[in-house]
Amino acid sequence: MHQDYIQPNPWSIIEEGFDKDRIKSSESLFSIGNGAMGQRANFEEHYSGATFQGSYIGGVYYPDKTRVGWWKNGYPEYFAKVLNAPNWIGIDLWVDGEQLDLNTCKKVVDFRRELHMKEGWYKRSFVAIMPNDVEVAIEATRFLCLDTDETGAIQYQIRLLNVDAEVIFLPYLDSGIKNKDSNWDDKFWNTTKITSEKNRAFIESHTMKTNFKVCTFMHSELFLDGNKSEIKPTSKKDELSVGHSYVVDVKKGQEVTLVKYGGYTVDRNHPADKLIEAADTVLNEVSSLGFDGLLEEQKKAWAQIWDMSDITIEGDIKAQQGIRFNIFQLNQTYTGTDSRLNIGPKGFTGEKYGGSTYWDTEAYCLPFYMATKNQEVARKLLKYRYNHLEKAIENAEKLGFKNGAALYPMVTMNGEECHNEWEITFEEIHRNGAIAYAIFNYTRYTEDYSYIPEMGLEVLIGIARFWQQRINWSENRNKYVMLGVTGPNEYENNVNNNWYTNYLAKWCLEYALEQLEHVRQQYTTDYKRILEKTQLTNDETGLWKKVAAHMYLPLSEEHGVYLQQDGFLDKDLVRVADLDKKERPINQHWSWDRILRSPYIKQADTLQGFYFFEDHFTTEELEKHFDFYEPFTVHESSLSPCVHSVQAAKLDRMEQAYTFYLRTSRLDLDDYNKEVEEGLHITSMAGTWMSIVEGFGGMRIRDGKLCFAPKIPEQWEMYSFKINFRERIIKVTVSQNSADFEIDSGEPLEIVVNEKPITLSA
Amino acid sequence: MHQDYIQPNPWSIIEEGFDKDRIKSSESLFSIGNGAMGQRANFEEHYSGATFQGSYIGGVYYPDKTRVGWWKNGYPEYFAKVLNAPNWIGIDLWVDGEQLDLNTCKKVVDFRRELHMKEGWYKRSFVAIMPNDVEVAIEATRFLCLDTDETGAIQYQIRLLNVDAEVIFLPYLDSGIKNKDSNWDDKFWNTTKITSEKNRAFIESHTMKTNFKVCTFMHSELFLDGNKSEIKPTSKKDELSVGHSYVVDVKKGQEVTLVKYGGYTVDRNHPADKLIEAADTVLNEVSSLGFDGLLEEQKKAWAQIWDMSDITIEGDIKAQQGIRFNIFQLNQTYTGTDSRLNIGPKGFTGEKYGGSTYWDTEAYCLPFYMATKNQEVARKLLKYRYNHLEKAIENAEKLGFKNGAALYPMVTMNGEECHNEWEITFEEIHRNGAIAYAIFNYTRYTEDYSYIPEMGLEVLIGIARFWQQRINWSENRNKYVMLGVTGPNEYENNVNNNWYTNYLAKWCLEYALEQLEHVRQQYTTDYKRILEKTQLTNDETGLWKKVAAHMYLPLSEEHGVYLQQDGFLDKDLVRVADLDKKERPINQHWSWDRILRSPYIKQADTLQGFYFFEDHFTTEELEKHFDFYEPFTVHESSLSPCVHSVQAAKLDRMEQAYTFYLRTSRLDLDDYNKEVEEGLHITSMAGTWMSIVEGFGGMRIRDGKLCFAPKIPEQWEMYSFKINFRERIIKVTVSQNSADFEIDSGEPLEIVVNEKPITLSA
Repeated sequence: MHQDYIQPNPWSIIEEGFDKDRIKSSESLFSIGNGAMGQRANFEEHYSGATFQGSYIGGVYYPDKTRVGWWKNGYPEYFAKVLNAPNWIGIDLWVDGEQLDLNTCKKVVDFRRELHMKEGWYKRSFVAIMPNDVEVAIEATRFLCLDTDETGAIQYQIRLLNVDAEVIFLPYLDSGIKNKDSNWDDKFWNTTKITSEKNRAFIESHTMKTNFKVCTFMHSELFLDGNKSEIKPTSKKDELSVGHSYVVDVKKGQEVTLVKYGGYTVDRNHPADKLIEAADTVLNEVSSLGFDGLLEEQKKAWAQIWDMSDITIEGDIKAQQGIRFNIFQLNQTYTGTDSRLNIGPKGFTGEKYGGSTYWDTEAYCLPFYMATKNQEVARKLLKYRYNHLEKAIENAEKLGFKNGAALYPMVTMNGEECHNEWEITFEEIHRNGAIAYAIFNYTRYTEDYSYIPEMGLEVLIGIARFWQQRINWSENRNKYVMLGVTGPNEYENNVNNNWYTNYLAKWCLEYALEQLEHVRQQYTTDYKRILEKTQLTNDETGLWKKVAAHMYLPLSEEHGVYLQQDGFLDKDLVRVADLDKKERPINQHWSWDRILRSPYIKQADTLQGFYFFEDHFTTEELEKHFDFYEPFTVHESSLSPCVHSVQAAKLDRMEQAYTFYLRTSRLDLDDYNKEVEEGLHITSMAGTWMSIVEGFGGMRIRDGKLCFAPKIPEQWEMYSFKINFRERIIKVTVSQNSADFEIDSGEPLEIVVNEKPITLSA
Repeated sequence: MHQDYIQPNPWSIIEEGFDKDRIKSSESLFSIGNGAMGQRANFEEHYSGATFQGSYIGGVYYPDKTRVGWWKNGYPEYFAKVLNAPNWIGIDLWVDGEQLDLNTCKKVVDFRRELHMKEGWYKRSFVAIMPNDVEVAIEATRFLCLDTDETGAIQYQIRLLNVDAEVIFLPYLDSGIKNKDSNWDDKFWNTTKITSEKNRAFIESHTMKTNFKVCTFMHSELFLDGNKSEIKPTSKKDELSVGHSYVVDVKKGQEVTLVKYGGYTVDRNHPADKLIEAADTVLNEVSSLGFDGLLEEQKKAWAQIWDMSDITIEGDIKAQQGIRFNIFQLNQTYTGTDSRLNIGPKGFTGEKYGGSTYWDTEAYCLPFYMATKNQEVARKLLKYRYNHLEKAIENAEKLGFKNGAALYPMVTMNGEECHNEWEITFEEIHRNGAIAYAIFNYTRYTEDYSYIPEMGLEVLIGIARFWQQRINWSENRNKYVMLGVTGPNEYENNVNNNWYTNYLAKWCLEYALEQLEHVRQQYTTDYKRILEKTQLTNDETGLWKKVAAHMYLPLSEEHGVYLQQDGFLDKDLVRVADLDKKERPINQHWSWDRILRSPYIKQADTLQGFYFFEDHFTTEELEKHFDFYEPFTVHESSLSPCVHSVQAAKLDRMEQAYTFYLRTSRLDLDDYNKEVEEGLHITSMAGTWMSIVEGFGGMRIRDGKLCFAPKIPEQWEMYSFKINFRERIIKVTVSQNSADFEIDSGEPLEIVVNEKPITLSA
């Protein structure tokens, strides 16, 4: 644990006290988002200290030129980067001619932030003693509307505590923003039009190259002691920004409130030449509701989300706060309303991991959205990849694969690869398997088979073709081998026969063959269409069978475990527990070659396979592999603890499962990986949810039935969660002595608890 | 072979005809250098077409900021890059107000370039029909003085063929130059002073960051029909350049000659505040000699070089031209007069491979300089690394090694690592072994043991310490293994137990132990000093012994060969001959992952070990390994064909040896690798020399004796070379029927020819 300043609270994230060293961390932790846009917890007013400014718009990215000294054939020409978008939250403030800047104030007292997760708003309050000795009390509340997702609202209240003074408010828009990760001198935004009328202003700009057109807008209103003021603002414009200056004579003790609505209209949702009109319409709507009216709507919208996705934990406030923080952030990042969007590893909280979509979505996020939203949302996530199939085929072609083989990119915004480390881009190909697995997982969970004949089978064929071309026959082993890959454990590069990848490839081939047969039998028209489209031949499927049947899987007979890859046993097998603590995390202390030749595992690799294919192995086998690999695992990926938590629970090691749970659920709040400043680990938050539902709750789908094996950490009195299973809502409540299952109205449903069938009635 | 426009000629490189597509290629091929500076064959006059401008100063580099998106601990903060230096060769020309520019002329006829290797000068001549229909004949000759190595001379002669006209000559200096590989907007040069006086001008500038101070200077003289003209130039200055404008009324047929002397004085050789004075002195010296006088000196200096290093080949003009081109370029790059300089892979002919020094120097270049110069020059090359020992220790520390372990950088200018691909920088560690091998090779050849107690032993200790810390014990194999390395074959990355590296490491440990014992017995004072300085303990040397004795060496019993690395036999072992020719070179057609998982070898790897340690193996073993590995070798490194040529000759496969010889000797002239535009492959040129002397001549040192086993390709009538062996000059002449050996005056010398002892007398 690296930090411990967040106040424990079941429903809120709270910081107390002003500490300049925590600014960037809190800017991440108190981020807000609504699926379409996001905002780091930057101050509204000017701040001259260290800060990481970030406003983000879903689906708006920039294709930065890939430039590495040592180019490899197949590198993408461009990599997408998350763009810092024009700033709409800014409100500068002058009191008696002195600008408010918390970095230069004589003193800041009673500084407090609260992110109210239940209702979906963020509030910051403080008293500042300014260099001119004016004492000003501020309370700034803001949120991004879940319903009207193109906009947010800010209520910025001030009171002067010791004098009367002239106060100037300057709410503004600014498109002169940069990316923190901008190494090159490329300009990202082109500003084309700035207009200002009465209390509204608009900036039209578009991204370079991608040409996403965006209108950033604002509307401001001033209130004196709760009453709308008649003071008219003066417009201030320059090349890249526009502001409205309100000059107010404020009496000591008087409450002055600036309300600002703002946000973005984008050409994904509106005609490009009607962005200002669209913004005007949105502003009419929100300003007529008013800040309080909007806040009411916000509360209602979040209540609906929580009703379905909340997990309660009794007796452990930090665990409760942790899980809610994770669920809250996941819902801020992706709402499932737009199949063109996806779940970026940092969501709307930072720039890192440039692209939007990783295999995290399929491997970690899908179960969460499937169980807490509905099957339409899950299907949208699958469709996202179907829509990118053609680009995945092109991507494979660039690497020398043929005949419709598909390799999904490691990182993508629009289906194109946008990452350029050869050991990842070209070799971390297991991602392809996760995309096939998601189709299986979706079908198993929802019982909605229709996705496969409609779209999924084509994806499965492309993926199977890739695997069949990627392996080669080894005379030496008399088996098919897969050379030069990087597994989920990125602390190994360019290894041969990564067990996880080989096993997954074998499964993909078998699964594609099965589904092909199923579609042939049950969906004749689709079958014909797909065969014609893909030109799949019997020779090809014959090869798939052969490869699946003769895939090499590295095994240690001595240890009775599958080997993570060829040569794993040659390593110096010192356990993590025996490492010098000063050298951890190893990725911050060791050179890359040292990490690579060490046995240390960044995240579940062989165990990831046991997680995906639990039913293929006995519990004894799981235990053996867990005991072999976990001691070498450093969990330096945010995606690691959750899988281990689920498996430890399955193995009845509740103390260990609980430790892993805490690590995953409070990863960012307590900053385990010393990097929260850069943004939150959004995709791993779905893993936290998994730790409870699949780990402690033991939820599985077996033989088409919903199964549970409830357990509870001894630190907890009780926990409960709901899931949406095939459009039925089941509530699970587990205490130290009992487990209760409730179902919504409707037909009785047979579930399995601890391997015994139980029928639930409403 | 990619191009075939160079005229066969025993002593000259000649191009005939003007072809804009060949400009950049010829700029490389006709480069001139004198060990201290170099100049691509750019035109003196303005050229608006595609060109690659390059003037280079030995030892003057720039530490560019290393920027990669995916930073690894241990990457160097900076990487050195060869800098394009201020231009001193420029002479712009206007005829009747129209600027001469071969790119825009109506016609260019009789265009001819000649690089006269025997005498060390470069001449370009042509007739241009200018847009204004003036026909002008130009003959421009230039060279960089071998003796006065801070300067060069240009004689730029013009004649008007069809009219009288006003001609303006503008010889100039320009420090507003850029690097072609400059991706970033860093400025490389800061110009601080520009002065011009009469017919001389000086630009003082210094490199950013490294602060190398350089004075670029020129002196010009005008001659009309051979007589010095009284015309005074007008000075033209701007921020970054200075020129002297001569306005001349030229009659049709009149010969007008501009002579320009120019070059650089640098603060490595002069006090920083005396660079202009130093330049003035140089100019006094060269201008008093005059162009013809300097040219005479140049001819003499080159005659001396050729007297010692020439190789003659009769009956094969292309082979003759090839070997002389190689010897010429090596001597242009490094003269052995300054132990702070070294041999960059592209010499002074291009920017690529940013840094100056690779393992090429020790593995390929040392034998050439040792045999064609003298032992002082070879010792300077060793001393270069001794001077960098401290930085090699720091470099190893950055990667986590301790206690004086030394890892020499992969690429360096000043001892610091300046390359940042993890698979090369951190893993291509065999380079360390080549540095130890060079010490062995030097001692074996020269019988000068003194280098070891004076300097070499400390280097050997640092290197041995590195290897001992780099291996680990494998319980599994009951041997020491070396994981995660890149061998000389860079088409494999991060492999385990690369045979070459393991074998070399084992040898380094044994050799260090032997030398330690030898110094202990014979050089007591040095021994004590070294022990005190290095704090070497018996525990350490005990470990060295143990590691050397139990090093794992991968072996295939089935094939009876050492394996290049673990897992080599799992590959799809299709021979190069069976590949589609359209897909070659594979590095231009295949993605990196595909190259890595293929069996294809970029350059000798296992065979490099057989080359270094030939005496450790039988000829039958060599043959077996050659037959196993060569068929998988694509020779896409310039360093590959030479080793294979030497070994093919050893195996009596003269046809194959000859093919490899042609490929190495005419690599750049015929542009086999399609990249000659970027510069010449200087270091591999020493390998060409090896192919003849060690390959066809069969020269070896065994038991302290010089041995030969002369062979000759059937395409040749005769060849001869000289070598300096322990300060004796031996001339070897081999024809189809005989081999003759001559020695200079002095004591008789016993040599071994075809395993029989022979005594040579003067």
